[in-house]
Amino acid sequence: MRTPIPQYLQETIDAVRGQTHGELPAYIPGLGNADPDNLALALCTVSGHVYSAGDDDVEFTIQSISKPFVYAMAVQEWGMDIVLDTVGMEPSGEAFNELSLHSVDNRPVNPMINAGAIAVNQLINGVDSDVDDRVEVIRQKMSDLAGRELVIDEGFADAEIEEADRNLSLAHMLRSYGIIDDMAHDAVDSYTRQCSILVTVRDLAVMAATLANGGVHPVTEEVVFDVDVCQLTLSVMGSAGMYDSAGRWMATVGIPAKSGVSGGLLGTLPGQLGLASLSPNLDPSGNSVRGVKIFEKLSDEMGLHLMSTERSAGVHAIRTISRRGDDSVVTLQGVVNFSAAEAILHTLVERDFTGDRVVLDFSRVVESNEMGRYMLKEGLGILRAQGYEIAVVDPDDEIEDRQMDDGTEVPLIDVPGRQ
Amino acid sequence: MRTPIPQYLQETIDAVRGQTHGELPAYIPGLGNADPDNLALALCTVSGHVYSAGDDDVEFTIQSISKPFVYAMAVQEWGMDIVLDTVGMEPSGEAFNELSLHSVDNRPVNPMINAGAIAVNQLINGVDSDVDDRVEVIRQKMSDLAGRELVIDEGFADAEIEEADRNLSLAHMLRSYGIIDDMAHDAVDSYTRQCSILVTVRDLAVMAATLANGGVHPVTEEVVFDVDVCQLTLSVMGSAGMYDSAGRWMATVGIPAKSGVSGGLLGTLPGQLGLASLSPNLDPSGNSVRGVKIFEKLSDEMGLHLMSTERSAGVHAIRTISRRGDDSVVTLQGVVNFSAAEAILHTLVERDFTGDRVVLDFSRVVESNEMGRYMLKEGLGILRAQGYEIAVVDPDDEIEDRQMDDGTEVPLIDVPGRQ
Amino acid sequence: MRTPIPQYLQETIDAVRGQTHGELPAYIPGLGNADPDNLALALCTVSGHVYSAGDDDVEFTIQSISKPFVYAMAVQEWGMDIVLDTVGMEPSGEAFNELSLHSVDNRPVNPMINAGAIAVNQLINGVDSDVDDRVEVIRQKMSDLAGRELVIDEGFADAEIEEADRNLSLAHMLRSYGIIDDMAHDAVDSYTRQCSILVTVRDLAVMAATLANGGVHPVTEEVVFDVDVCQLTLSVMGSAGMYDSAGRWMATVGIPAKSGVSGGLLGTLPGQLGLASLSPNLDPSGNSVRGVKIFEKLSDEMGLHLMSTERSAGVHAIRTISRRGDDSVVTLQGVVNFSAAEAILHTLVERDFTGDRVVLDFSRVVESNEMGRYMLKEGLGILRAQGYEIAVVDPDDEIEDRQMDDGTEVPLIDVPGRQ
Amino acid sequence: MRTPIPQYLQETIDAVRGQTHGELPAYIPGLGNADPDNLALALCTVSGHVYSAGDDDVEFTIQSISKPFVYAMAVQEWGMDIVLDTVGMEPSGEAFNELSLHSVDNRPVNPMINAGAIAVNQLINGVDSDVDDRVEVIRQKMSDLAGRELVIDEGFADAEIEEADRNLSLAHMLRSYGIIDDMAHDAVDSYTRQCSILVTVRDLAVMAATLANGGVHPVTEEVVFDVDVCQLTLSVMGSAGMYDSAGRWMATVGIPAKSGVSGGLLGTLPGQLGLASLSPNLDPSGNSVRGVKIFEKLSDEMGLHLMSTERSAGVHAIRTISRRGDDSVVTLQGVVNFSAAEAILHTLVERDFTGDRVVLDFSRVVESNEMGRYMLKEGLGILRAQGYEIAVVDPDDEIEDRQMDDGTEVPLIDVPGRQ
Repeated sequence: MRTPIPQYLQETIDAVRGQTHGELPAYIPGLGNADPDNLALALCTVSGHVYSAGDDDVEFTIQSISKPFVYAMAVQEWGMDIVLDTVGMEPSGEAFNELSLHSVDNRPVNPMINAGAIAVNQLINGVDSDVDDRVEVIRQKMSDLAGRELVIDEGFADAEIEEADRNLSLAHMLRSYGIIDDMAHDAVDSYTRQCSILVTVRDLAVMAATLANGGVHPVTEEVVFDVDVCQLTLSVMGSAGMYDSAGRWMATVGIPAKSGVSGGLLGTLPGQLGLASLSPNLDPSGNSVRGVKIFEKLSDEMGLHLMSTERSAGVHAIRTISRRGDDSVVTLQGVVNFSAAEAILHTLVERDFTGDRVVLDFSRVVESNEMGRYMLKEGLGILRAQGYEIAVVDPDDEIEDRQMDDGTEVPLIDVPGRQ
Repeated sequence: MRTPIPQYLQETIDAVRGQTHGELPAYIPGLGNADPDNLALALCTVSGHVYSAGDDDVEFTIQSISKPFVYAMAVQEWGMDIVLDTVGMEPSGEAFNELSLHSVDNRPVNPMINAGAIAVNQLINGVDSDVDDRVEVIRQKMSDLAGRELVIDEGFADAEIEEADRNLSLAHMLRSYGIIDDMAHDAVDSYTRQCSILVTVRDLAVMAATLANGGVHPVTEEVVFDVDVCQLTLSVMGSAGMYDSAGRWMATVGIPAKSGVSGGLLGTLPGQLGLASLSPNLDPSGNSVRGVKIFEKLSDEMGLHLMSTERSAGVHAIRTISRRGDDSVVTLQGVVNFSAAEAILHTLVERDFTGDRVVLDFSRVVESNEMGRYMLKEGLGILRAQGYEIAVVDPDDEIEDRQMDDGTEVPLIDVPGRQ
Repeated sequence: MRTPIPQYLQETIDAVRGQTHGELPAYIPGLGNADPDNLALALCTVSGHVYSAGDDDVEFTIQSISKPFVYAMAVQEWGMDIVLDTVGMEPSGEAFNELSLHSVDNRPVNPMINAGAIAVNQLINGVDSDVDDRVEVIRQKMSDLAGRELVIDEGFADAEIEEADRNLSLAHMLRSYGIIDDMAHDAVDSYTRQCSILVTVRDLAVMAATLANGGVHPVTEEVVFDVDVCQLTLSVMGSAGMYDSAGRWMATVGIPAKSGVSGGLLGTLPGQLGLASLSPNLDPSGNSVRGVKIFEKLSDEMGLHLMSTERSAGVHAIRTISRRGDDSVVTLQGVVNFSAAEAILHTLVERDFTGDRVVLDFSRVVESNEMGRYMLKEGLGILRAQGYEIAVVDPDDEIEDRQMDDGTEVPLIDVPGRQ
Repeated sequence: MRTPIPQYLQETIDAVRGQTHGELPAYIPGLGNADPDNLALALCTVSGHVYSAGDDDVEFTIQSISKPFVYAMAVQEWGMDIVLDTVGMEPSGEAFNELSLHSVDNRPVNPMINAGAIAVNQLINGVDSDVDDRVEVIRQKMSDLAGRELVIDEGFADAEIEEADRNLSLAHMLRSYGIIDDMAHDAVDSYTRQCSILVTVRDLAVMAATLANGGVHPVTEEVVFDVDVCQLTLSVMGSAGMYDSAGRWMATVGIPAKSGVSGGLLGTLPGQLGLASLSPNLDPSGNSVRGVKIFEKLSDEMGLHLMSTERSAGVHAIRTISRRGDDSVVTLQGVVNFSAAEAILHTLVERDFTGDRVVLDFSRVVESNEMGRYMLKEGLGILRAQGYEIAVVDPDDEIEDRQMDDGTEVPLIDVPGRQ
């Protein structure tokens, strides 16, 4: 048996194949002669399942899609505050190759524009790193993210540097303002080689899923980034990743994303999955024409929009409340986050329990977060203060630490209704 | 018993009470003499539970927090495309009282800046509406959102109009570009009265929760807005709601939000809850000093960040797979969305079932969406094509429509293991 | 006999009559239906001779051409420094109806853009003046400049104010920044009526000639402005008068100028003449199409370019040096300014005078300035210090004050060669 | 004997010596350690007389003062239209080291900002010139302008290029937009060496005087530039030479000028003289603090302001009108340009001549231009048409060509009053 997902992905790319407008970026040597018919789509879940369709084995240079990952590397290495001294995090509202510096302190406004990405690149492996070491550290981390050894298209990089006047202009400007210390040519060399790492859509989907998974590689389970580094990176992608159509992208697609001039497009839905597409023809904003269509379609059909108001499981957090002997058993289910815990507490408060003991049964709880656990323990404390005995059923140790504020422990029982 | 939530909210405002810097907006008559000590916080869930702390009965003029709601009204009345002809949806990167128009077509760049909000106000109740009717329609819809009759502080509005040179400047500019048709003074009159509606933090929390709940009022259950209107409105709040610190807000708080010059701050977490705070002293960006602190604290402690990568329930979507007689019973749990369905199908594909029949047990499923149901039916079809019998246990009719692509129906059974 | 000048002017307008492109400003009520065939040209010398051709008796509203004159009024009334606190004097590089304020202090960047002109208007007749008085003071001064009673087209003004959204926008913005104190509507009323004064090209040429003549009306000989007020006004016209083509205008025409939306164009050549043309069709920059052609032609053919490097008379300042008895007689001619005096002194220095006395003959000097006279007296002092006797022939008392630094007086003689 | 001019210059620099504020440009290697006490002033007339005071033999690098001269070279080589395709001529209103490109076609807005000057440098000696040849052509032309062999401070240039990040940024940007073809490093190398030519204030004054003199070197009499090239160059200096204080400079000084970061300041009064000062401390706009004071003082005291409304000689163009026998003799004097000719014709028209013949006596005319001569011949033709005989006295052949429109020649006579 095979799942219908590859077929769904195939149908998705077939639906956009007719969109042949847009243009190759003729001004970049080595991209102007890409095959505009290449079309591929891949998806990777936080569980590490990878699906794909189309030209999913075609390698292409990662280009600007490297930006969020190298930004994450910088934040991992230096912390957010120090990185903020070098590059801001506001949307730029400008095209991808423009100089866009803060008017007061000349920092690039965000790490998703070239000026910002060049500055971020310089932070990797220490500011004293030579170019080769820095590039190797980046290549290695990208390989960790993809779960395979990625290689740099050095021939492409060499040709690109020859014609990299825009980036050299940015690098010299950054250097003149003291934002970077390296010689401009070295900075652009380093950045260009970062952009010349060869990937497939499957690689990108896996890399995106690692961000979605809080920095833990979904297949290798290697911890590549810390959770808060991923959250910050996704935030910046969300507000600044799509150049001058960031607002419209958020409205119509609602998935933090990053596009590259070689036609790639990567999206990450936090906690759920990574997506990546390839189609080289670009719209005037520099985004892949078919890629944008694919993401609009997926967001709509798969219900992936970040601002989707579908009710979360919280409202059904209590499965049943039943009486078993002297126990009132409250059986929880699903994910216990703030919303769920609030719903549970709300019910506990409304209810007049007739028995002696109130038991919270965690055995059907799928997952919980700290706020949820904290609130439920608070609730148990209140019940006890009102004169009830309390206990939990928690075969999988979901509650982790049963100690309460007053130092006592919530009693654990095996089978509700029996001591 | 009472829940610990009000106490938590109280602790939250107590924690920021010492932050006495910032300033009242002296340039606005009637706001310059507000009580800077006012401090309040409210929370409303999509289930309609409202919690609050501090000066939660103090009424203040809603100001710019009206913008997303009136924008939603306009989108509801005209549709997104027509509204887009009048006002864009890109972040402005500018202060809240500046002229910020598209360079080509002179549209305001987004509805969260004053120029955009004035233009949006003009769309309500038809372009030919007189001011009184328009304002009444807005006041009524705001009342529907709050769940109580709100009133306009007409005295404040009258004084404000006298000194509304900035807004009059914007209105005349909009009119000169043909963006609005009304006389400038009427436009500002209408907008100023929209901003002069009196609310409490509890009102705002309920209004925010209505957006979070897809437009259905969580208490009255009235359908105030369509689901997609809410999603669009939240998207625009997310990318442009916090003036020139939109990117930093997304990074550090991660909750779509809108602030007002009277010290209010409103946030909406899609599908979960609405939040609102009040504290009149403003930072140089025009946001409430304590309000920003409160939201940072809540986002961090309550795990509300939109880019949080906490694993969703999807990865635990299969509770057990067991053999009962000739049946292989796959027991599902939690929310069945795309991620969950994918996890389920992935397992079905890997597994070699030894029995004759594969049964999906939906009895522990909390909720499902269309994509999830579609995928599971596809999976069942594939199993059948491989020669298995199939059936579902679905006591709550979660699957809704059991008809498959070939016109047959998925058999429904009562008890797994028995026919 | 009649001079050939009117014929030359007629030939000039005939040469551009075929230039029928450009458009009437349809957006301004009352200008959109002007007769595009109107074509007129006038010239006034600093001696008060007025020449004209074409539709020289057609009256039209003065519009922006009023700006330099009202600016001169403000400088005359308040002095340059105080006026500078209200409006700057830098070129704006922007179109004529845009908001163009200094980024730091919000002053309009110069008085030739609408924002600046509205602010300048408010300075006339004291800041507490009511609108009617202010407008009357302006109308009266404009009449003094034209040498006849000018009237305001009140009907035009009334219609214009109805649709003056751009100017109202500017006025409200200026008021919000504290640049003006009057109510915005009053400010625009006052400015609009200033712009609605009816003039002919002959009026404008005379007004321009008054500026060229250092503020003395060339016909009535009334002192309308001080010399330094005129110099400042012409400087600002020179750098900012022609909107966003100021640099190109200076390069190709080289005459300080100001255009108006009703098709007028006024130019002033300091110390020489005033020019004015009328032709209503405008180019995209808002300047009269035929007017620009006329000025280019006149500047080229008449040698009026301010940067013309034609040698001034200075190099021929000494007519002859001759020996008459014991006198060496140096006969001067033309204008004795710095350049001429330098040339004279240079020759005196080079020369070894053989006689006992050196005589400067001023009888053919046309005019001198203070620097020129000062330098010649210095030169005479040096000659005396070297042992020469000195004297001057100065029948017209050109030298004015013959007292030298040491208190002695330069001897005056009647006929060179005789004591 | 010596003239008082050097003493006047000396007094001028002594008057500003106390102005010790301002700062050396520490960011430029080799300028940061200049002697801030250096102070010099020089003046050169169009007759080639050079005067100076202070440290007039101190050599310094010419820096931005090279810009107008190399611009003139480009216009001389290519013509204005082709140069305009590369660089505009509008004031920039921006600081001297900023990127300031036309928004539509990316041309630098004018040749006085660095981006423009780098682009202009590339036009010299053909676009295919190698750097050494180009620099040598520039050095040679600068030497022609100065009237002595100038040398380049190659050590300074080499050090400067090492740290020329701003200029390299501009050059790469220009190259990316196709404005220049050379490699960015070569372009900056070439431009930097142009800026490293060593000059004294006397050199600069002579160079400025060559522009003032219509391109003819006032000492060597070599034709270095055409007249119209000089007029265009002075126009651009006038509107864009003083960076972001162009308007204020025009208002307060009124002399087309250019400053350099090494403390030089050069001014040109068309048709009259060149000025140059040296004082290394700079104000925040990048102009020499004392240099600005010197120019303000000279302009005021010497009456050099371009917008000075001092009456030209035109109004006194007729010395006398007398009757000698049957002749009415009109004796002209001074410069016969348009204004003078107009005054003459105006008088001729007013006058009823009683004799048979009208004689124009040119013997006291100092100089005339084409328009003046044309107008006088027209006037004579009209007199003849009215029945008068006409004749001229013109011992110096001022009128050049006595042929009139109808092919006849104006009779020439020797002595007025006799046939």
